[in-house]
Amino acid sequence: MAKLVECVPNFSEGRDKEIIEKIVDEVRKTEGVKLLDYCSDKDHNRSVVTMIGGPQEVKEAAFKLIKKASELIDMSKHEGAHPRMGATDVVPFIPIKDITTEECVELAKELGKRVGEELNIPVYLYEDAATAPERQNLANIRKGQYEGFFEKIKQPEWKPDFGPNEMNEKSGATVIGARFPLIAYNVNLGTDNIEIANAIARKIRHINGGLRYAKAVGVMLTERNIAQVSINLVQYEKTAIYTAQEMVKMEAKRYGVPVVGAEVIGLVPMKALIDCAEYYLQIENFDINQVLESRLGE
Amino acid sequence: MAKLVECVPNFSEGRDKEIIEKIVDEVRKTEGVKLLDYCSDKDHNRSVVTMIGGPQEVKEAAFKLIKKASELIDMSKHEGAHPRMGATDVVPFIPIKDITTEECVELAKELGKRVGEELNIPVYLYEDAATAPERQNLANIRKGQYEGFFEKIKQPEWKPDFGPNEMNEKSGATVIGARFPLIAYNVNLGTDNIEIANAIARKIRHINGGLRYAKAVGVMLTERNIAQVSINLVQYEKTAIYTAQEMVKMEAKRYGVPVVGAEVIGLVPMKALIDCAEYYLQIENFDINQVLESRLGE
Repeated sequence: MAKLVECVPNFSEGRDKEIIEKIVDEVRKTEGVKLLDYCSDKDHNRSVVTMIGGPQEVKEAAFKLIKKASELIDMSKHEGAHPRMGATDVVPFIPIKDITTEECVELAKELGKRVGEELNIPVYLYEDAATAPERQNLANIRKGQYEGFFEKIKQPEWKPDFGPNEMNEKSGATVIGARFPLIAYNVNLGTDNIEIANAIARKIRHINGGLRYAKAVGVMLTERNIAQVSINLVQYEKTAIYTAQEMVKMEAKRYGVPVVGAEVIGLVPMKALIDCAEYYLQIENFDINQVLESRLGE
Repeated sequence: MAKLVECVPNFSEGRDKEIIEKIVDEVRKTEGVKLLDYCSDKDHNRSVVTMIGGPQEVKEAAFKLIKKASELIDMSKHEGAHPRMGATDVVPFIPIKDITTEECVELAKELGKRVGEELNIPVYLYEDAATAPERQNLANIRKGQYEGFFEKIKQPEWKPDFGPNEMNEKSGATVIGARFPLIAYNVNLGTDNIEIANAIARKIRHINGGLRYAKAVGVMLTERNIAQVSINLVQYEKTAIYTAQEMVKMEAKRYGVPVVGAEVIGLVPMKALIDCAEYYLQIENFDINQVLESRLGE
């Protein structure tokens, strides 16, 4: 089976189409890597690239993207609504198929080392690649942003994991790491009472005693006039979509409220949905290789 | 999106490893085609190849396989337990992704024409490619087998669709066609009473008034001492796996028998399982392109 990694670099240019295309071209030009999506936001002055491919190929494409961004973006002149600290701001590696989070952590470290040494950019490892608890959270690392980092980087606890111990004035600093695919899953309720959605969200989510890898909030869908439980699943192999769905139903019963629908937002790994089919169909001993499409790209 | 076709040629050699490998090599050597599986049966003296890829590429690989089989297999000396009429016996094209059955029928006709003209082998179109109702069923075409076809081919109603009006002594005749992917799905019951499985099978299957695209029989799993409803779904987009599953449960209730498990046998298209996840999770407006893996091979 072929290993498959997703990588979602964010870089700090969302206005100049020509620069954006030149940076994205680095991904397009890398063999063995597929550009799935990229989008730019003018207010944020930021672009997000989604690519997928073999681990070494994706790592190579990410390096080339970071290098090109360091050449074409000048952070000393950058402004935008979104918090940022570098020309390439953040680069997560995400395991998709036949690859562990640990292997993605290795990829993050290898890439970070190369970016530090060859491009002279300070690099911080985050999420599952973090080297200290306070570096797990991206927002925590990025606090102070580009402008504040010229001082922050001098503090011993904010010494970069790779690269120089001082800011790169043109390129800033870059955060690289590994995380499990996040699934955005929303469950629609047959009620216009947002309080019910909020109460269910509190039962579902980890922070209030619910499912370990679920975050949840109540949201009002004003156009349809229904309340929704909006859920993020950060480890679908441990907290599955069907588990969240059934737990919402269970809690909704208390209010006599039905589940009227659900939605998956954005991309989702095939296995997250097939796990649900397996559960509901009570399939025994299913092997993901029985899925025709899982055999492609071997 | 890239079109994806499966093709499952059956050829009449299951004993001579060297010949089998040379024939399968024709698939391996064809660019844009992936050999998913092949297996040979000595008693049947027959091999089955499963490949997948783009329509033109798969058609090319199938032609090369038929050509090689016509060179290396001599049907006048062939014997085996499985009914057969040609060196390459039958070649179905199966739509997998972004391709219609009609397009697969076209592929079958194009391949049939080429095999008839270039290899001088009589070709019959079957299943969805059939040119007459009595040619839909493979067993019906093949009746009389290789030995009987020297006479059968002379009957006006058995004039080949392509190629010469007489048998190719060395290569026999070949059946080519298109059919929807077949899903083999079995539901295990919490009872050792085969009569209950048979009764449920009769309610499920088309022939007795059940689901249009379902075939079903009761089977005893002697090792586990439980009865099973063994189901074939021949059009999963119209008669879905979850429909069969829920209908078995519904009928089993009459006997107070639970469904204790299920199994998918062999390969299954991703969409057949994701359709089930969509149903049970009540997902609205899902687009198969949201599945990461569906974007590969574009």
